[in-house]
Amino acid sequence: MRASVAGCRMSVGALLNGLLVSVVAALLWKYSKLSEHATLLEEELHMTQQSQEVSQARIDYHVALQALQEHGTRMVCSGKMHTDRICRFDYLCYCSEAEEFVFFHSNSSVMLPNLGSRRFQPALLDLSSVEDHNTQYFNFLELPAAALKFMPKPVFVPDVTLILNRFNPDNLMHVFHDDLLPAFYTMQQYSDLNDEARLVFMEGWGEGPHFDLYRLLSSKQPLLKEQLRNFGKLMCFTKSYVGLSKMTTWYQYGFVQPQGPKANILVSGNEIRQFARALMEKMNITKVDEPERDGGSAEDEKEKEKKDEYIVVFSRSTTRLILNEAELIMALAQEFEMRVVTVSLEEQSFPSIVQVISGASMLVSMHGAQLITSLFLPRGAVVVELFPFAVNPEQYTPYKTLASLPGMDLHYVSWRNMKEENTVTHPDRPWEQGGIAHLEKDEQVRILASKDVPRHLCCRNPEWLFRIYQDTLVDIPSFLEVLKEAMKARPNLKKTKIPWNLKYLKVREVKYEVWIQEQGENTYMPYILPQQNYTFSENIKPFTTYLVWVRCIFSKNLLGPFADVLMCRT
Amino acid sequence: MRASVAGCRMSVGALLNGLLVSVVAALLWKYSKLSEHATLLEEELHMTQQSQEVSQARIDYHVALQALQEHGTRMVCSGKMHTDRICRFDYLCYCSEAEEFVFFHSNSSVMLPNLGSRRFQPALLDLSSVEDHNTQYFNFLELPAAALKFMPKPVFVPDVTLILNRFNPDNLMHVFHDDLLPAFYTMQQYSDLNDEARLVFMEGWGEGPHFDLYRLLSSKQPLLKEQLRNFGKLMCFTKSYVGLSKMTTWYQYGFVQPQGPKANILVSGNEIRQFARALMEKMNITKVDEPERDGGSAEDEKEKEKKDEYIVVFSRSTTRLILNEAELIMALAQEFEMRVVTVSLEEQSFPSIVQVISGASMLVSMHGAQLITSLFLPRGAVVVELFPFAVNPEQYTPYKTLASLPGMDLHYVSWRNMKEENTVTHPDRPWEQGGIAHLEKDEQVRILASKDVPRHLCCRNPEWLFRIYQDTLVDIPSFLEVLKEAMKARPNLKKTKIPWNLKYLKVREVKYEVWIQEQGENTYMPYILPQQNYTFSENIKPFTTYLVWVRCIFSKNLLGPFADVLMCRT
Repeated sequence: MRASVAGCRMSVGALLNGLLVSVVAALLWKYSKLSEHATLLEEELHMTQQSQEVSQARIDYHVALQALQEHGTRMVCSGKMHTDRICRFDYLCYCSEAEEFVFFHSNSSVMLPNLGSRRFQPALLDLSSVEDHNTQYFNFLELPAAALKFMPKPVFVPDVTLILNRFNPDNLMHVFHDDLLPAFYTMQQYSDLNDEARLVFMEGWGEGPHFDLYRLLSSKQPLLKEQLRNFGKLMCFTKSYVGLSKMTTWYQYGFVQPQGPKANILVSGNEIRQFARALMEKMNITKVDEPERDGGSAEDEKEKEKKDEYIVVFSRSTTRLILNEAELIMALAQEFEMRVVTVSLEEQSFPSIVQVISGASMLVSMHGAQLITSLFLPRGAVVVELFPFAVNPEQYTPYKTLASLPGMDLHYVSWRNMKEENTVTHPDRPWEQGGIAHLEKDEQVRILASKDVPRHLCCRNPEWLFRIYQDTLVDIPSFLEVLKEAMKARPNLKKTKIPWNLKYLKVREVKYEVWIQEQGENTYMPYILPQQNYTFSENIKPFTTYLVWVRCIFSKNLLGPFADVLMCRT
Repeated sequence: MRASVAGCRMSVGALLNGLLVSVVAALLWKYSKLSEHATLLEEELHMTQQSQEVSQARIDYHVALQALQEHGTRMVCSGKMHTDRICRFDYLCYCSEAEEFVFFHSNSSVMLPNLGSRRFQPALLDLSSVEDHNTQYFNFLELPAAALKFMPKPVFVPDVTLILNRFNPDNLMHVFHDDLLPAFYTMQQYSDLNDEARLVFMEGWGEGPHFDLYRLLSSKQPLLKEQLRNFGKLMCFTKSYVGLSKMTTWYQYGFVQPQGPKANILVSGNEIRQFARALMEKMNITKVDEPERDGGSAEDEKEKEKKDEYIVVFSRSTTRLILNEAELIMALAQEFEMRVVTVSLEEQSFPSIVQVISGASMLVSMHGAQLITSLFLPRGAVVVELFPFAVNPEQYTPYKTLASLPGMDLHYVSWRNMKEENTVTHPDRPWEQGGIAHLEKDEQVRILASKDVPRHLCCRNPEWLFRIYQDTLVDIPSFLEVLKEAMKARPNLKKTKIPWNLKYLKVREVKYEVWIQEQGENTYMPYILPQQNYTFSENIKPFTTYLVWVRCIFSKNLLGPFADVLMCRT
């Protein structure tokens, strides 16, 4: 009973539920016909399996069916609340007609958490990484396993499956922040969610323009909700995980409060960079790593590096344009004496773009999803984000927040167009591209007069859309000014002292032992370093004095004396 | 730096930390000696591995060492708060001298959650299933992987390991509620925590009297903290999970508020019974299952059952005695016309006790840990808990709560000694057995005069201990009275109507299709049942009216008409 009652309380409402019930009733009457039909379904399965490569992991159908009938569904979840929950299932089924997942009860089924007859409120879990979004909830119907005898023969998916919702597969920032990173680290939580795992996207969208990126998560083709119909009326996942970790997300999109960084960010740049590295390997991109430094003199290195440094301008070719891009590029080249490369999603393959960005010293771009690619920048690089007129950079910080994550080691700068004469508006475009023609006249007047978009919630604020879709003529002097200021303000990095006598010593393997003591603390942190220049950023508190003890280690066991202690203020 | 700073903030405090630092320093100087020592450790490892059967899963030592040095430690956790977190590690290490776990940082190490330089407050996670208990926290030191070159050669544990604290291994209730059930379902969350997994108990206790029960969780011998020293100064778990699920616990012991059921119980009797079944299989106990009912007449069944029904009295032979146990047994036998069997932890093996209890119709016992065995009772059985004088049954309900879990299908009755002349106190025993001689005279007088132990916190309330360790002469009339009342009050179970004409039909395979509709709801729940008598307990709401539609199904496809609808009130 809970099943259908719950069903009608679920997203799809009474309609679908009535449908399910009538289906079941019909099936009861048509039992004999169904057995034939089931055989057809099984053939269909094998067809589908072929095309889906599922056949590689084929299972004994009748063993599986018996297990399902006897043991029903097993579910064990982690997490106390629905916003924080991932569940592991054996034999979770999906009824494509009712578009509902089904939990089959037997006297040996397991459900943890089990609320008895109380239903999960508002849902068992979030199916996307966006917290508590009411279009992203996951629930299931409940039926007695006995009812299986009177339902279509189930089709089994033998792969270990990760079931989730993509939040917005059309937008590159959303693809990375909401889907790829969370899925990548959700898979790392479970040993059997490996390269052989199957992803199933239940949000109901088509593949979308970035589907190749989702393909990188495992060797198996991801399945879309619409494709599940091909498996027949009832399909059962022998082993599946449902839900996504939110551990790696850093930004909230303004559904309950104006958009901004998440209150409690749990990811650091290290995990982002691990993810980026893994993805680049999948794309067969050989990262331009920081050159090895042990031995050779630092000066030569500096020279060598200098030569192959370059700046990337990420240009948008349809909306939110930089109207004087050529001029901007010239200015950058002259100012920094570097090559300037332009890339655009419309003209290059994504891997080729990542290849370029992974070696860049600076990334310049208008505010927009393409800036998520800054997670592929090397450590120490600079991110420059441009904002159209009347848009406050402090209110839209997904990329600033990313660049500022500890361990991300990026330097972020924003520039904002302050000159109204340098902006080009598009009042007559459709509303979703910032058009305002559909608004009341006086509202249009108000928006046109306003010099600053007030704080607002997601997602259809016309004033915000109007301003963010402006094209901009970048004022070069003010742009360079901001850039130079920012570079000056770059934090003064602590360096370990290079012993004066080193260049006179002919020692191949020189290492440095560095002990750092926080003033007042009675404990030390020992580091063994190959480099002469090393920046201690991790675990360094601001506004603190550190005592730094440095000594040489020649060929491992010959230890030099500690040099005089260095005092460092952060 | 975070490492040692954190270290000294950790449970062990600055002392151990100073120790660690000096150890590391010493090791730096004694490098050459250590390399010899490391070889010894490796031999020691192989010895230990033999005895620990670890050898079965031996790994390439140098591959593992290289992986650790290059990639450091990887950690990916579930759960937002430390009270709700389980973490999966690659290469988590343990320094037995400092008694600290160590996380090795490299530029490819992963830490999720990663709070940068902010430390986990108050801890990364709870190592036992008891929520937020400050003696049960888990944290680790952090060191750069480079430091490995100057530390003792690590010994690798190739098993997939579950690391946890047992909360109170001496007490059977704690063993089941805090350790076995949580560990069992934690292992069900992770596919590689299987029968080959290794458990490591870090609370620091010895094996304890119930170690055989912990052995049932996997085929490998669990390791105790003290045994980790045998692996040498530094050991690394190639794959490990740290922490326990709290999903299955139903009781809180009164650390912050007087003891009682947990605020939000997430486990049902079904999961408890699944666990019990699994444990019984491991103990090679053949559960006395409810007899199959299809076909044969219900009356015969009733008779057959009646004959082999029996009552179990679980007696305690050292403290909290029933002084007239023989009389009590006689009374029970006469009242219910059943055999009465007594069991005691002191005189029987645990499996033999479980064997007996798993077939009992009633379990009678003084309040105490042995009552946790009621989770092995068959559905429908009765649990009778006796309380000494001045102890209020409503305030100490671990077993009442267990018996009352939905789907546990047990009937709970408590009896309390109201006659002071029937109680025997032990004021002169040591305090932990309820002695009060050590207290102020007037405090002793107050306690002796009190007729009811006031609500109190855990764990050393002398008045509580004094009263709970009393021996009791059970007043038979009042005891039987309570019992009979309780049996009357047993909920009137709904039964499906047996068609009058059935006994005249010669049909082998008769099934019943039952549709249940909650009055006012527009949805139904279909059941297909083999039995004539079936109790719908699951998902039935109290104080609700249900419409029940029943019809016969002869040999699957020949369907009878629906009988008149039945109205059932709960």
